[in-house]
Amino acid sequence: MTAPSLTLNPSGKLAIVGIGPGSLAWMSPEVQTILQTATDWVGYQTYLDLVEPLRAATTQRHVSDNRVELERARAALDLAAIGRTVALISSGDPGIYAMAAAVFEVLEREASPVWAAVTIQVCPGISAMQAAAALVGAPLGHDFCAISLSDILKPWTAIAARIEAAARADFVIAFYNPVSKQRTWQLEQAQAILRQWRSPQTPVVLARNLGRTGQTVTVKTLGELVSTDADMRTVVLVGSSQTRIVQQSHDRQWVYTPRFYPS
Amino acid sequence: MTAPSLTLNPSGKLAIVGIGPGSLAWMSPEVQTILQTATDWVGYQTYLDLVEPLRAATTQRHVSDNRVELERARAALDLAAIGRTVALISSGDPGIYAMAAAVFEVLEREASPVWAAVTIQVCPGISAMQAAAALVGAPLGHDFCAISLSDILKPWTAIAARIEAAARADFVIAFYNPVSKQRTWQLEQAQAILRQWRSPQTPVVLARNLGRTGQTVTVKTLGELVSTDADMRTVVLVGSSQTRIVQQSHDRQWVYTPRFYPS
Repeated sequence: MTAPSLTLNPSGKLAIVGIGPGSLAWMSPEVQTILQTATDWVGYQTYLDLVEPLRAATTQRHVSDNRVELERARAALDLAAIGRTVALISSGDPGIYAMAAAVFEVLEREASPVWAAVTIQVCPGISAMQAAAALVGAPLGHDFCAISLSDILKPWTAIAARIEAAARADFVIAFYNPVSKQRTWQLEQAQAILRQWRSPQTPVVLARNLGRTGQTVTVKTLGELVSTDADMRTVVLVGSSQTRIVQQSHDRQWVYTPRFYPS
Repeated sequence: MTAPSLTLNPSGKLAIVGIGPGSLAWMSPEVQTILQTATDWVGYQTYLDLVEPLRAATTQRHVSDNRVELERARAALDLAAIGRTVALISSGDPGIYAMAAAVFEVLEREASPVWAAVTIQVCPGISAMQAAAALVGAPLGHDFCAISLSDILKPWTAIAARIEAAARADFVIAFYNPVSKQRTWQLEQAQAILRQWRSPQTPVVLARNLGRTGQTVTVKTLGELVSTDADMRTVVLVGSSQTRIVQQSHDRQWVYTPRFYPS
């Protein structure tokens, strides 16, 4: 992707937007308006395709591969610097394991003076853990943590220490990026750490392709969990010691964490 | 509030909806549609007033005080049991320190057979920590925890243990319910625990009245934080050791947590 011109124009805007987990029904009106009025969309192809129905005929698509977040952030800032109105598109919430941090990393590291006049806006979205929780009840109804199991940008020792801390202090945990083609052992290692502190009967929620074709939401126990239950499109919620299953009727059950905590 | 009749009708529905932090621009289309088509709204007055522009003339409002969550949940289930289409209204995300857990608590404790046929749906929303983060940059850009500082439903010892665990494992922390008229010391106690592990220069974000009239967002340091900075309408984000301030221009700065973590 190349910028069409390098004449700076201080009217440029960069909106880092979260489209939610996939369904348009979960996307904020703020983000819808920005997508409909942007001159340029920048993002990973899968996400651009999800919001294609909102694209105006004149809006240019700048498709990038996944895992080139810093390049994508730089390209979006460069387009805004020449006066374009740019939407940088993340799934979920752009501030939770998504593109917003990448933009500020580039802004700080490269400190390019051409980016100083760009009007930057971050637009929140519903994150995968929230949609997963809503579909099964209220497993995040009490204190919780979000932990990415990807050890590409952080050492496994830091991840393991966080899992142990969260387990000991009895937080509900949302695991993002639990498994990928290259990272196959992290989820079972996380499970092994959790099993030192938490019952094998602890409810676990596995939600895949949220808001998209092929959505699946499964409730298992911590003891039953295996790596093949998850992939990069899965978010995994692990209950605390208090997380419970309630049977509403013979064919409907819910998972929730009470608001109260025993002494 | 009294139910108009006790004839059960299995077509009743209860949607537990999150309206986001306050602005209609942050409310999902799913929730907007439910609010516009419900026969009954149940909720705390402040939240009902925020969404009043979406109310159909025939939709009945059932206003309740704050802090009577279980009564409100029971009333909403009872209305749905007689065939009404009920929206139970939370601010933010109903699954994060809000009404969804209260509904499942009542459902489990009272196990009333009249509720078995109600179609329950939980509709996620943008939570205060996400809106606060978006307004200042990307402070939740890496692993984080959400902790409520209210010790009404859980003992302070459990809260203190969670703060210490989160501090030791270097999570970014979002504090909900930091201060109220009755609870004035919890935020400074949390700060004292954090100060054992984290620099006084750690960035802290205080966001009040998000998406509403009188919205304020302030960035301070952990060392400067005092209880009078916050109230029940404030969410407080405390950075990790890696959370940084980046200066985009002479008059614009951002707070973010990088995606990478040092070995």
